[in-house]
Amino acid sequence: MNKIKIDSSAAFLYPMPMVLAGSVVDGKANFMAVGWVSRVNFKPPLFAIALGPHYTNQGIDENKEFSINIPDVSLMEQTDFCGLVSGSKTDKSEVFDIFYGELKNAPLIKDCPVCISCVLYNAIKLPTNTLYIGETKEVFTEEKYMTHNKLDVRKINPFTLTMPDNQYWSLGENLGKAWNIGRNFKKK
Amino acid sequence: MNKIKIDSSAAFLYPMPMVLAGSVVDGKANFMAVGWVSRVNFKPPLFAIALGPHYTNQGIDENKEFSINIPDVSLMEQTDFCGLVSGSKTDKSEVFDIFYGELKNAPLIKDCPVCISCVLYNAIKLPTNTLYIGETKEVFTEEKYMTHNKLDVRKINPFTLTMPDNQYWSLGENLGKAWNIGRNFKKK
Repeated sequence: MNKIKIDSSAAFLYPMPMVLAGSVVDGKANFMAVGWVSRVNFKPPLFAIALGPHYTNQGIDENKEFSINIPDVSLMEQTDFCGLVSGSKTDKSEVFDIFYGELKNAPLIKDCPVCISCVLYNAIKLPTNTLYIGETKEVFTEEKYMTHNKLDVRKINPFTLTMPDNQYWSLGENLGKAWNIGRNFKKK
Repeated sequence: MNKIKIDSSAAFLYPMPMVLAGSVVDGKANFMAVGWVSRVNFKPPLFAIALGPHYTNQGIDENKEFSINIPDVSLMEQTDFCGLVSGSKTDKSEVFDIFYGELKNAPLIKDCPVCISCVLYNAIKLPTNTLYIGETKEVFTEEKYMTHNKLDVRKINPFTLTMPDNQYWSLGENLGKAWNIGRNFKKK
């Protein structure tokens, strides 16, 4: 076996989905780029984002609302910009055209194919990050991103992130159907 | 604006990374396919997996240890198999060749490019899922999966999952450098 042990902090997921997390801080919409994000509950639909000590957090802590916006490849530069500069120094409220659903402190991005508004369900303090768990209140998309009434990742055209090499990647080829192709597997 | 509202439970992340979560149940290694997974803390490195009520959970609850294994495309059928059948009915201990590091209840998969053993840090009960947060103890890989001493996603050759269409996808093209290309963005 050729296994080697590497530093325990050097492993991430391959690849990570990229989202823009939004909150309202001091009355202005603010967004940050987040790759540490996951759906975490089936019913009700909960999502979690793991944030370091960022400006965005202030808005979530205060208003108990946030948004998750899934950008497409055309928004990669803007998304990266939101990861490069802090809202404490740079007003990011005009980077995107925004809209709001029912939640007035969960800013949504018009050009993002999928926009999710969340009410804070729980905030779990971890040693260096806070895990914000949000309950999905509204999900916005457009007909052009759907096929047979389901969100279609080919139409969404998202991008993904890898660390620690810090690279963005497109979606590749369709490889098969989940909860299905495993039927072909015969035990050795 | 052409936004439409869809069912709040119909949104996922696009795409999700796919891992095999492992635990030891009744003395045997067991694995399940998981797409609801994220790194959640920088230091120490913590990962979270959100599991429904599965057989795997018993092993984590009892032994306070689990593993996260990142499969490559060649393991897609086996991975999907682990998502199709429950360990309560089917012994999955021989689906993969396994090894162990220091943690004797965190089974690692030899053929997976990245294997992470975790000690349970916290288990958070959510309405239908349990969010198991694990602290990374050891990370195993092979030289062939690295470039300049960093894990290289092109060499790992992972696959991703989308829901609710339930499809697997390969990694696509490199699109640019994160924490960098945003410098090109000029505010409108």
